[in-house]
Amino acid sequence: MPASAATHLLTAARIHTGDAARPVAEAMAWDEEGNLLALGSAEELRRRFPDAREHAQPGAVVIPGLIDAHAHVMGLGFALLRADLVDAASKEEVIARLKAFEATLPPGAWLLGRGWDQNDWPGKAFPTAADLDAAFPERPVWLERVDGHAGWANSAALRAVTRDLSGDWQPEGGRILRDAQGRATGVFIDTAAALVDAVVPAPDDALRAEALERSLEAAAKHGLTGVHDMGVSLADLGLMRRFADEGRLPLRIRAYADGAAAALDALCAMGPYEHPDGRLAMRGVKFYVDGALGSRGAALLEDYSDEPGHRGLLVTEPAAYAAAVAKARACGLQPASHAIGDRGNRIVLDTYEKVLGDAAGGDHRWRVEHAQVVHRDDLARFAALKVVASMQPTHATSDMPWAEARVGKERLHGAYAWQRLRALGVPLALGSDYPVESVDPRLGLHSAVTRQDRDGQPPGGWLPDQRLTPEQALHGFTAGAAFAASDEDLVGRLAPGLAADFVVLDADPFVVAPAELPELKVLSTWVDGRPTYLAD
Amino acid sequence: MPASAATHLLTAARIHTGDAARPVAEAMAWDEEGNLLALGSAEELRRRFPDAREHAQPGAVVIPGLIDAHAHVMGLGFALLRADLVDAASKEEVIARLKAFEATLPPGAWLLGRGWDQNDWPGKAFPTAADLDAAFPERPVWLERVDGHAGWANSAALRAVTRDLSGDWQPEGGRILRDAQGRATGVFIDTAAALVDAVVPAPDDALRAEALERSLEAAAKHGLTGVHDMGVSLADLGLMRRFADEGRLPLRIRAYADGAAAALDALCAMGPYEHPDGRLAMRGVKFYVDGALGSRGAALLEDYSDEPGHRGLLVTEPAAYAAAVAKARACGLQPASHAIGDRGNRIVLDTYEKVLGDAAGGDHRWRVEHAQVVHRDDLARFAALKVVASMQPTHATSDMPWAEARVGKERLHGAYAWQRLRALGVPLALGSDYPVESVDPRLGLHSAVTRQDRDGQPPGGWLPDQRLTPEQALHGFTAGAAFAASDEDLVGRLAPGLAADFVVLDADPFVVAPAELPELKVLSTWVDGRPTYLAD
Repeated sequence: MPASAATHLLTAARIHTGDAARPVAEAMAWDEEGNLLALGSAEELRRRFPDAREHAQPGAVVIPGLIDAHAHVMGLGFALLRADLVDAASKEEVIARLKAFEATLPPGAWLLGRGWDQNDWPGKAFPTAADLDAAFPERPVWLERVDGHAGWANSAALRAVTRDLSGDWQPEGGRILRDAQGRATGVFIDTAAALVDAVVPAPDDALRAEALERSLEAAAKHGLTGVHDMGVSLADLGLMRRFADEGRLPLRIRAYADGAAAALDALCAMGPYEHPDGRLAMRGVKFYVDGALGSRGAALLEDYSDEPGHRGLLVTEPAAYAAAVAKARACGLQPASHAIGDRGNRIVLDTYEKVLGDAAGGDHRWRVEHAQVVHRDDLARFAALKVVASMQPTHATSDMPWAEARVGKERLHGAYAWQRLRALGVPLALGSDYPVESVDPRLGLHSAVTRQDRDGQPPGGWLPDQRLTPEQALHGFTAGAAFAASDEDLVGRLAPGLAADFVVLDADPFVVAPAELPELKVLSTWVDGRPTYLAD
Repeated sequence: MPASAATHLLTAARIHTGDAARPVAEAMAWDEEGNLLALGSAEELRRRFPDAREHAQPGAVVIPGLIDAHAHVMGLGFALLRADLVDAASKEEVIARLKAFEATLPPGAWLLGRGWDQNDWPGKAFPTAADLDAAFPERPVWLERVDGHAGWANSAALRAVTRDLSGDWQPEGGRILRDAQGRATGVFIDTAAALVDAVVPAPDDALRAEALERSLEAAAKHGLTGVHDMGVSLADLGLMRRFADEGRLPLRIRAYADGAAAALDALCAMGPYEHPDGRLAMRGVKFYVDGALGSRGAALLEDYSDEPGHRGLLVTEPAAYAAAVAKARACGLQPASHAIGDRGNRIVLDTYEKVLGDAAGGDHRWRVEHAQVVHRDDLARFAALKVVASMQPTHATSDMPWAEARVGKERLHGAYAWQRLRALGVPLALGSDYPVESVDPRLGLHSAVTRQDRDGQPPGGWLPDQRLTPEQALHGFTAGAAFAASDEDLVGRLAPGLAADFVVLDADPFVVAPAELPELKVLSTWVDGRPTYLAD
């Protein structure tokens, strides 16, 4: 290999740089370490770098590498190792899918699945263990709801729980659904799911590595070059570090420690974690304040519109949450707090305001994850406190069939209010929450721009004044996400001095009809100037 | 300040470099970052560095910075905040010292002390709670034995323990001394001390910082520029990191994680810890295999000579210990295993041999801490397995009055056998185990060279064939210790490219009579070319 091969030159029909100084180019050059050297016309760059190795992509369009600002990396990996129940239209379809999946399992292994949503079924009632028992009398079955905030067990799984689930007690921050006789029906809300999770055999090291590899592969294939992994254990960080050491991380993972647990203590002792190759870092902590809207766990200031007397659940006690945020601050870490309901969001804002004190309004980049239903009076506080709103466009299009039933018309003013927050000056970072939603960021771009489902429903989009332009949507999945992880000097745009992280598409996302965004083809994905995915 | 001030030049009567290429010099130069540039004659270096700032030390002798290869940094700090009972000649003297110390305490605070040794008292019997109760009827008193392997409580402290201490049960790896009626007498051996430790109010952050500061100050004052801290919690590492960030670490601390606990998990996830300024690192793990000889906790292959039927205690179950060593290896960490008795040492050697497999004999630097009583057949295994022996000369001179009674003449062959191990080619790292012994390395040099107490007893030294020469002793406290922590390219010698860590003495340790070694005056201590201690 001649020394001149150290410079690379990519030419394409168009390169959207995301860089205000040069928004569009047709060529870019980078060095062997993957640092961008220059962008410009193909002619100019060929003249400047005559010995560069050229990657010609005629007709293709390049965008900065896509970054998912909120996802669960190991969760996706295990989801890929579990039965997929997303969009099953009935309990019968769930059972048919489980039967097909069971064929891949050894005898005695638990059958795990995820993605069911009773709102998609006739009657919309929660299922019960009995629904599964005829098909699976012996093998334990444990199925996570689409939003991760509820679980559904068969009787074999219930038998594995040693604690007596009947009676009238409830765990803190969760709910065991019971029948009139006080017996558990098989559905467990929020923290109650831990009763069953605790008896599921733990995956061994080989299975964990397999899950990570599948997750990374799926992400790279869809054009992701980075992900903010929300809630990572110390052990999972160790696994990711091993992958980074071995050069097996095709994404830049920005891991957020899983709450006030071992990883937070480790970061407080050793300082924020940075892998030397730039592919892995842990500089922040994920906290959970409330549950989710679908399972009515999101904490609301007033009653649920479709369940009078119920206002959701706090997963963490506000005082304990405030102490954990203060600890994160003292340790120099960035908090990222899950808040869905307007009460959850208010608790986060109140806490951030109090803990930051005079530093509120500074460049702290403290994050609210989801910011899904925000009280009308609290929208401007996001801007005043300089909080980053980390939001997921596909949650809006998944929830739109029933969100109004949960919260009513008035509260929709601050619900999934991307454009309203943006207009107030709030930095937006966009993500998917995969595996809760699909890992595919094209679906996120589509939801963001259209607020419609794939069939174009509802016409004009749901709450259409909150749609984003294609440029705004792409910004949220690139520079906006990079900013939320303090990575803006490394990625998020294509400019000299930054990393050559980019995606090669077959068409221009700013030119195709919004409805066609999910059809964009990812031709290749590149990180540090090297391909992490190449389509056939 | 002119730019030329960036180079420093020290001149002295003599500089012992520890560097075979130039063992003696009279001047050395270093740059503003503290990197040694050159050593040689004063005339030559003044010519080469005409603009250097000269630190003239006429008549003084310079040696490489002293490194204590086995100590407890926070332990010394808390010891300095506790009553000192070392060398108290009777229980009456203990009580007199406690009374004097009590005057510094607020009402209700526990009176903590350490350093008692019943072997120094008339009768040599273990004390009891009753011995303390007349003087301290209300205030809890809790006193650690000189070797850290036993504790002595008064009745007020016993009352604070909620668990019933009477009966005939014993905790795993420890012993509660009881009277004929089955009541606890007040002395707790090894793990049994945890029953009382658990009810001592925990020190708050301010007290922990105070302890660390006092410990560091005491070490720098005695010529230490480095310490291997054996058994550091994640929280203590965090405190040390804060000190390092603030430029308040006058020593290079090589912290070893405290066994199979949170710090080990953190290192496994994040990798060995290195502070960017070189003053703090955690690259290894400390394990405890057995107890100590003084309290008959050291695990022996045969009975204690002075207690037939008793063979000591294993603090860690061999299988659990082997699993922990294997975990350390998988995580790329260096094990350092406490082993005092010949059975303890054999367990370590067997475990290292098995876990290292083909890598035994390679450059792994796995350590045995203390290696105090080694079976005759196991001495050569240290060399064959390329294990580092981390030994404490003052332990020998502290233990010599009663060690033979514990193990008998035959087993003394492999006891405190520095010269025997050295002659076999085993790398020796020397330390003090402070606060078990004094932090003062001059006492370690004295013990190593004389094997006598300060009064010159016994004549000729105890087991005198195991004495070290002054050069061997200094090597153990400098280059030998550096090697044991893989720091040999940074410290341990004075040579170009290494750090300017050194001690300025008023006399030459290779010239003064061995009995005078403890009288050497530390004029100043330097780390990275800056003074960390200056005598008045």
